[in-house]
Amino acid sequence: MNEFELIQRLTHNLPMNDSVVVGAGDDCAVLDVGAGGRWLLFKTDAVVEGIHFTSETAPEKIGRKALARCLSDIAAMAGTPTAALVTIGLPRKFDAELVEKIYVGLNALARQHGVAIVGGETTTNPERILISIALIGFVPRGKVLLRSGAKVGDAIFVTGELGGALAGKHLDFEPRLAEARWLAENFAVHALMDLSDGLAGDLRHILKASGVGAELLKRAVPISRAAKENAKRGDAAKPALVAALTDGEDFELLFTLASKLAVPLLDAWQQEFPKLRLSCIGKIVAGEGLRLRDGTGVRPLPAHGYVHFS
Amino acid sequence: MNEFELIQRLTHNLPMNDSVVVGAGDDCAVLDVGAGGRWLLFKTDAVVEGIHFTSETAPEKIGRKALARCLSDIAAMAGTPTAALVTIGLPRKFDAELVEKIYVGLNALARQHGVAIVGGETTTNPERILISIALIGFVPRGKVLLRSGAKVGDAIFVTGELGGALAGKHLDFEPRLAEARWLAENFAVHALMDLSDGLAGDLRHILKASGVGAELLKRAVPISRAAKENAKRGDAAKPALVAALTDGEDFELLFTLASKLAVPLLDAWQQEFPKLRLSCIGKIVAGEGLRLRDGTGVRPLPAHGYVHFS
Repeated sequence: MNEFELIQRLTHNLPMNDSVVVGAGDDCAVLDVGAGGRWLLFKTDAVVEGIHFTSETAPEKIGRKALARCLSDIAAMAGTPTAALVTIGLPRKFDAELVEKIYVGLNALARQHGVAIVGGETTTNPERILISIALIGFVPRGKVLLRSGAKVGDAIFVTGELGGALAGKHLDFEPRLAEARWLAENFAVHALMDLSDGLAGDLRHILKASGVGAELLKRAVPISRAAKENAKRGDAAKPALVAALTDGEDFELLFTLASKLAVPLLDAWQQEFPKLRLSCIGKIVAGEGLRLRDGTGVRPLPAHGYVHFS
Repeated sequence: MNEFELIQRLTHNLPMNDSVVVGAGDDCAVLDVGAGGRWLLFKTDAVVEGIHFTSETAPEKIGRKALARCLSDIAAMAGTPTAALVTIGLPRKFDAELVEKIYVGLNALARQHGVAIVGGETTTNPERILISIALIGFVPRGKVLLRSGAKVGDAIFVTGELGGALAGKHLDFEPRLAEARWLAENFAVHALMDLSDGLAGDLRHILKASGVGAELLKRAVPISRAAKENAKRGDAAKPALVAALTDGEDFELLFTLASKLAVPLLDAWQQEFPKLRLSCIGKIVAGEGLRLRDGTGVRPLPAHGYVHFS
């Protein structure tokens, strides 16, 4: 059983109450807690030594990444983060200076986004450092952007460039909070999420939640320089397009909106965020599943990203 | 450096914003998020295999305990829990049935207290299971009960019986949510917290936060049957009183209020909660530190609980 199958089994009959607008399954939970014109967003995310960072990673960057991942989930709902709790699991003999440096990186990013750090705890995790962040935020009532709103005919957009994030971007990425709020305020976005597991896998979450399919244009997928450079490292290297489709940790925004808004959006985006690339990478179609189109035709795109064009 | 020293260093200059009513240092963070007449409570707590439970512990009880600890922190603020997120770190080859059973125990306790489980995540923690719960709740605006309100002359109370929780109670305890809300609604409680690290250590948090001292009456400390039975197991065993003062995981309420209310409280409590013992164990005094009184006199009570009466 893989992680997704397990989650499906665990989440099919969870305890609920009247406060729940959106429970498990989107980027954040959404709760109506009577906070005037706002809904509460609630999210946790963990990073683990040896998996999301190594013993060589600068501790400031570990702390930054732990919070940035959670902030990206708030962005994925077009929300604004408010306050976080920090849980750190540490070996019994921990390096206090290292823990302080983790907090330096985390606190700096929190200040940048106006997020209060309101506590947390340290616990013992003997073999490796584990950091779990719990984050609350808010979104204007009824204005939350879910994965489930994609419609047939929508254009599909992605910010930034994809693939190769492990070369460095996974520690330095900017959560797209301002961009997501601007999108929600200025365009009728139908579906929104952040990319954490790779475009080919993550887009399927939107498709499944929305009951639709998608066709991506091969030449429109924005490939990062890191993915291109990795691809040059010998025959065993992953092709750059496959990296862009399947590498995780991009933390860019993936969203859809009516195709008639595609050109106005690209124009307005260029004015508002001239330094951040925005790419229209395909369209939402009827049916299900993900396909990739190039000059020779259209073929199904498996989750591992490898497509064999004849 | 121990856990408390580290936390002190980490929490002295955390990022803040206008929403924060109480940041790090009490049982929960308290936030003013414009939710009408209520303040938001925010808490995380983690349990780790080999530390808070073993590979022999029934998985339903592991899940129950993980949530119950967090609920106890909401009780410690006289609040009501609303919704939780569940983070589980698992070895790469996990037993799916065990994880499902963890959720069975957790979900049952959540339903009992009307708490929604609104998501979470699974991550990889190769050597051991780790469960971190993030919980939000609410408390009537301005009615939160902190550690910092104890006043000289207050009577000190504790619910239940203390010590020996590792014999079983640490997996089965009832978070004192109803009791804490009833206290807050009916009596002018000055300071409140839940006991997690043992009375002798935890009471010091109230004393330090309130700038006062305390004197406990040796014969008034309620000692659990488990602590008494443990004490009979040979000369090396911890004396029952020491167990009651220093064993962790009691998850009972510890609170203070004006001594003139002590008798009315004991009367009303007996009517409201006839099955749960409530003990007046001492008084708040001027100065600092914790002392223990018996028939022969008063002596300082160190955090390890051992007092040598001559």
